[in-house]
Amino acid sequence: MLPEGFFSTTNLPTYVRVRGEWKLPRDPRMDSALVLDGDGVPRVVEGRYVRAGQPVAMGMAEDGSEGIFVHATGLLGDWEAGPEGEFKFMSSEVSREKPTDYGEMARLLVDERERGGHFIWVVGPAVLHSRGRDTLAWFVREGYVGVLFGGNAVAVHDIESATLGTTLGMNNRGVPVEGGHAFHMRAINRVRAAGSIPAAVERGIIQDGIMHALVTSGVPYVLAGSIRDDGPLPDTLTDAVRCQEVMKEHTRRATGVIMIATALHSIATGNMLPSYAWNEETGEIRPITIICVDSSEFVVSKLKDRGTHQAFGVITNAQDFLHVLRFYVEQEAAARQTAGAA
Amino acid sequence: MLPEGFFSTTNLPTYVRVRGEWKLPRDPRMDSALVLDGDGVPRVVEGRYVRAGQPVAMGMAEDGSEGIFVHATGLLGDWEAGPEGEFKFMSSEVSREKPTDYGEMARLLVDERERGGHFIWVVGPAVLHSRGRDTLAWFVREGYVGVLFGGNAVAVHDIESATLGTTLGMNNRGVPVEGGHAFHMRAINRVRAAGSIPAAVERGIIQDGIMHALVTSGVPYVLAGSIRDDGPLPDTLTDAVRCQEVMKEHTRRATGVIMIATALHSIATGNMLPSYAWNEETGEIRPITIICVDSSEFVVSKLKDRGTHQAFGVITNAQDFLHVLRFYVEQEAAARQTAGAA
Amino acid sequence: MLPEGFFSTTNLPTYVRVRGEWKLPRDPRMDSALVLDGDGVPRVVEGRYVRAGQPVAMGMAEDGSEGIFVHATGLLGDWEAGPEGEFKFMSSEVSREKPTDYGEMARLLVDERERGGHFIWVVGPAVLHSRGRDTLAWFVREGYVGVLFGGNAVAVHDIESATLGTTLGMNNRGVPVEGGHAFHMRAINRVRAAGSIPAAVERGIIQDGIMHALVTSGVPYVLAGSIRDDGPLPDTLTDAVRCQEVMKEHTRRATGVIMIATALHSIATGNMLPSYAWNEETGEIRPITIICVDSSEFVVSKLKDRGTHQAFGVITNAQDFLHVLRFYVEQEAAARQTAGAA
Amino acid sequence: MLPEGFFSTTNLPTYVRVRGEWKLPRDPRMDSALVLDGDGVPRVVEGRYVRAGQPVAMGMAEDGSEGIFVHATGLLGDWEAGPEGEFKFMSSEVSREKPTDYGEMARLLVDERERGGHFIWVVGPAVLHSRGRDTLAWFVREGYVGVLFGGNAVAVHDIESATLGTTLGMNNRGVPVEGGHAFHMRAINRVRAAGSIPAAVERGIIQDGIMHALVTSGVPYVLAGSIRDDGPLPDTLTDAVRCQEVMKEHTRRATGVIMIATALHSIATGNMLPSYAWNEETGEIRPITIICVDSSEFVVSKLKDRGTHQAFGVITNAQDFLHVLRFYVEQEAAARQTAGAA
Repeated sequence: MLPEGFFSTTNLPTYVRVRGEWKLPRDPRMDSALVLDGDGVPRVVEGRYVRAGQPVAMGMAEDGSEGIFVHATGLLGDWEAGPEGEFKFMSSEVSREKPTDYGEMARLLVDERERGGHFIWVVGPAVLHSRGRDTLAWFVREGYVGVLFGGNAVAVHDIESATLGTTLGMNNRGVPVEGGHAFHMRAINRVRAAGSIPAAVERGIIQDGIMHALVTSGVPYVLAGSIRDDGPLPDTLTDAVRCQEVMKEHTRRATGVIMIATALHSIATGNMLPSYAWNEETGEIRPITIICVDSSEFVVSKLKDRGTHQAFGVITNAQDFLHVLRFYVEQEAAARQTAGAA
Repeated sequence: MLPEGFFSTTNLPTYVRVRGEWKLPRDPRMDSALVLDGDGVPRVVEGRYVRAGQPVAMGMAEDGSEGIFVHATGLLGDWEAGPEGEFKFMSSEVSREKPTDYGEMARLLVDERERGGHFIWVVGPAVLHSRGRDTLAWFVREGYVGVLFGGNAVAVHDIESATLGTTLGMNNRGVPVEGGHAFHMRAINRVRAAGSIPAAVERGIIQDGIMHALVTSGVPYVLAGSIRDDGPLPDTLTDAVRCQEVMKEHTRRATGVIMIATALHSIATGNMLPSYAWNEETGEIRPITIICVDSSEFVVSKLKDRGTHQAFGVITNAQDFLHVLRFYVEQEAAARQTAGAA
Repeated sequence: MLPEGFFSTTNLPTYVRVRGEWKLPRDPRMDSALVLDGDGVPRVVEGRYVRAGQPVAMGMAEDGSEGIFVHATGLLGDWEAGPEGEFKFMSSEVSREKPTDYGEMARLLVDERERGGHFIWVVGPAVLHSRGRDTLAWFVREGYVGVLFGGNAVAVHDIESATLGTTLGMNNRGVPVEGGHAFHMRAINRVRAAGSIPAAVERGIIQDGIMHALVTSGVPYVLAGSIRDDGPLPDTLTDAVRCQEVMKEHTRRATGVIMIATALHSIATGNMLPSYAWNEETGEIRPITIICVDSSEFVVSKLKDRGTHQAFGVITNAQDFLHVLRFYVEQEAAARQTAGAA
Repeated sequence: MLPEGFFSTTNLPTYVRVRGEWKLPRDPRMDSALVLDGDGVPRVVEGRYVRAGQPVAMGMAEDGSEGIFVHATGLLGDWEAGPEGEFKFMSSEVSREKPTDYGEMARLLVDERERGGHFIWVVGPAVLHSRGRDTLAWFVREGYVGVLFGGNAVAVHDIESATLGTTLGMNNRGVPVEGGHAFHMRAINRVRAAGSIPAAVERGIIQDGIMHALVTSGVPYVLAGSIRDDGPLPDTLTDAVRCQEVMKEHTRRATGVIMIATALHSIATGNMLPSYAWNEETGEIRPITIICVDSSEFVVSKLKDRGTHQAFGVITNAQDFLHVLRFYVEQEAAARQTAGAA
């Protein structure tokens, strides 16, 4: 085996000081050790081929201070070594391979609720299936949602679930039911008959779910129309420019944003959002945190590529995200209550 | 608005009986109503354009029994109407848009533990990050894991975390630490020094995590080698044919399988697995449930496309999956204990 | 080695007739041979372990006619064996692992041009980058496009390219240029100054690209507005319901559709499309081919899951698709010209 | 409309000099203009709301030199403004939305062939379907391939195609054929009977395809074994450590690498590759170009996240990539021949 503290190589040009001279080693590759050949030239060798008695280079520093210099930016430009000019693993901006700090997100949500911030939730229809719908309604009722941005479909399938028990014609185990392809049209028809979503809630047509929670908790919502819409619902804003105006009334006073499983609405919201909240009177400036949840890295990258650089990506399933987030938020809120009572 | 019970159209050839004659409607499309034109020919019209007083076709049946026949399979072949020969939404086999029945998976795991089944867990390195690692170790210690299949990397990064606190050089908040690119090599080196993973556990070099839980709980594991491996660890089986033989000793007596975030190991296991467990003595045959968890539909489809048709896909993040599954398994196990005590 | 014509196993329950009795083999798995154990029970063994002299089951038929019966549907339901009730590989509906028949698509496009069909092209902004834009303009000029459906962004970035040489601020090598984030706003401003896209073409402000080809070839286009839009361009229809009406004037007479790299516009178009073209006068019914091109399987599955079952998926990059399709269309058109001249 | 040369905003803190004072504007957002409110404070307004006569800020510079300073890095840290400390669109490292410079790749391949470089092609089975297989064989025969790295499956399905006309049991139109699930096993069996792939080529068992081209052109190949393998073929190296040794004999003298549609083999190769080629005698150092082709960004990011930062990502379908690349390489080679003849 190698001695503790052996130097572990990178794939970059690496200069090793041997008897006063800086030398490039033979057979360069990463994740290996440096041994000295008989002619005084270092060689890169995988640990398993190093034999007892061979001289092995020691050290952790890559800046030459301990006799080994890794030339991270010289040959191939800055990107060779990652954006920080150092050889690193996991330097990508967004990856499903990175851990998610739910504790920090929970603290942010509870903080914002305490300080009366305006937290925008931007959601796609994927939040609706089974437990996701109940969990999001919980967040609304508990005061974590300042405004909800979504499309016609979010409200349609939420109301389909409230009135007929399916989403997109599937039951809560994911199985399409007979005649289910028409259920969302029947739900839309009932809301049209009532006149609006609040009217349908008042008349008892809608008795649970996200729209019910929004209406009964007095939380505003914006349903943006699109060419994909069936119906649409009477509450949907079909003109894109008018809808942007209504959304902007919220984005201009946003203090945080969470985007879940929608490219269209997330990018639209990102376009309108400043990267900071500015209090003109006090002059205070605070960054606006943007959490973007999607099942692939692509939507988050797309959002960043259109200028919303501060978005923080969480690559997961919408329903599982909501489940785990609620778990941590409940813990955080309980901990604060205990601390406050003490 | 439309009357309750209106017929909602599909995009398929649809015959409507009008005064004894079967007629194809004008302007066919889905999600719309059927009205009668002045010349006795039906027309497909979106609900919002139907005017009060217009005759609207009523009914739910699509088989002609109520005067409307949807020709699901005639023109375009079976696939036009989805695999069941009926117009349906959400008929895809695997989709992130489908709900996940964690309750059912929890019942299966608790059942298998009770009956002493041999449940195979096949895992990729994505399970390791932050909470995922702890949760998987919990499943091992609680007796839900019959055997663990993984690669060299799963063990390496688990032991990197146990010895140096990082996975792939990231801390548990996903930030690369200085010198972190070498940490997995240092972890490997320590295990090589100890001689094996069990020896490293015994000497206190490895004090927590998945490998620790396996060794201390006496649960077997198979670490398959691959050309991507660093090290490899002394416990890794580097010969693919020999490794298949060891894996097959487990697949031949498997009663259930869960695959998380690995294409290589999942497909390898699928290749060896029968679709059923057969007890030669009693003659009993039972299907083997295969749960395949991945962040995209592709791996699940690939697995099915290579013959493992019975795989059930769950499209989500590995760590969140484990978190939510543990939540449901704890509930299920507690409920049974309560029921057993009553 | 095994004899030519050996029976190759599946993972399904398989009955082998041995001396008049049907027997289940031991150690079932796929891709293996059947040998006879000493006690007259068959055993599944990988080819590499079969020894010279061992009796090996021969045959290709799985229906029992040659002594081997694969029970494809009995135990686990229809899906175990794939939709056709037979053990198959590659039975998924949409997969990047399937070959693409460009020759057939080319024949369809040339056929439709010859018979004067109304072919709808539905495109997202991904078609614009470098060669994609030129190639799509070629299809327009050559008469393969009946109408183009897209969003404000398609036109904006096409005109950004015509006027300032970038798309989304990148040059044609994919490198962001200085100040490039504002270029699409400058392009929009010039069109607003001209009054409309056709006016900007007439005044020479737009001299190449897709919108130029559409205007100068007299091919209609529909630019659907959305909440993501900058500007918007004067030609963009900002009201979703009004836009659906204009799109439907085209879908009702569509004879074929090609959708490239857009979920929103593809699903919107799918919603309106019948699965067949019906000539009310002659009574003739023909299926409408729908080709859906995207870089992942998800959009195609989503389209099918919302009822557009007849969509045929091509999983590739938008620009490469257009390049290869043009290559085949040119060959097909040339071959017909040669044949016609002979 | 706005005047040509208007300042187009970002979402970052932006200071505007008004009568000698630097002021933050109201209602910040990107893609808009700056107008002056009556009280001398600037306001961000979308172009469509600017009225004739309103004073609009002019300028392109964001460094304060023309009176407008965009504070790209101050508030939120470096990443807010993208890696270059400037507000940019499309700053992601890998994206399917970026154009691909096939001309440059073609020049590189032709250059390397001319100078006798050692170009490594690393390929997954996705290259095999229909045209991809023929095109890759063409590259081999034309001298563009120094060595081919792949797995057992690449060779198996290539030989399945040569001997039985299918890949993974599909015909070249992507349709599974009857009994096709066994065809790859029959192909393997024939090679085992012959003794090796070269022997099977010599005996005329394999008459076309990639393996045929490699054998008849004398180009070396490395088939790495894995636990997924059927057979395996006699030519497959089943021991991972031994296989790494054989691969390293090629990576140590590599001058360029192209990786197509394989995570396992690409990351394995990346692990062994230096980022530069060093001629110990002349002291010359040249960067090694790595082109990584995959249908999603994930594999490329994963490769970079494991230290192969210099990989250049091309997000497309393997077969279409090969088709388009051949098109450009043929043009480049012909152009050089013409130039050489002149």
